[in-house]
Amino acid sequence: MNHISKTPQPPYYAVIFTSERTEGDKGYGQMADQLEKLAFQQPGFLGVESVRDVTGLGITVSYWESLEAIKNWKENALHKIAQDKGKTVWYRQFALRVCRVERDHFFEI
Amino acid sequence: MNHISKTPQPPYYAVIFTSERTEGDKGYGQMADQLEKLAFQQPGFLGVESVRDVTGLGITVSYWESLEAIKNWKENALHKIAQDKGKTVWYRQFALRVCRVERDHFFEI
Repeated sequence: MNHISKTPQPPYYAVIFTSERTEGDKGYGQMADQLEKLAFQQPGFLGVESVRDVTGLGITVSYWESLEAIKNWKENALHKIAQDKGKTVWYRQFALRVCRVERDHFFEI
Repeated sequence: MNHISKTPQPPYYAVIFTSERTEGDKGYGQMADQLEKLAFQQPGFLGVESVRDVTGLGITVSYWESLEAIKNWKENALHKIAQDKGKTVWYRQFALRVCRVERDHFFEI
């Protein structure tokens, strides 16, 4: 999903997930693909932007209509399995921030 | 600055800047370094997380104490020059979102 999300007029919500991976894939790529497909089916999901560089540092920002939509996604069964594996296997460290988007601005050539 | 920012207790503010670069450096790297140094000197600046992948897609999230601090940074003279070059030379497209961070969660092995 290498592109910029076409989000609606603010306000809406963003979850900023900044993470540093451990070495090796260990099933991460497959889970990431599955979760992304599943996220697109969630009520209130507005889009996702995700970048990881060669050092293993990544930022994924997902956009949501409401805090309730974010809560439902947090409690999704497959997502919960991924959250556990994240802490035990995939991530050296991460920060997760839940935000209310107040305003935005888009530019395209 | 390949690491996760040690931000204070919420609420605070985040600026999510997702961008797709044009081809070639064209002075971008030097300006990015200069701006990052300058940002650290701004009143109310709390940190920055930045990742760009091999395709040219990047996400930079800067953290701020207040909307006023973000406004002052937007109006900084060197930053204004960079904003102009961004639209005319460096970016194919971008999205900028100003958010209020409501809650956060950190994990480290």
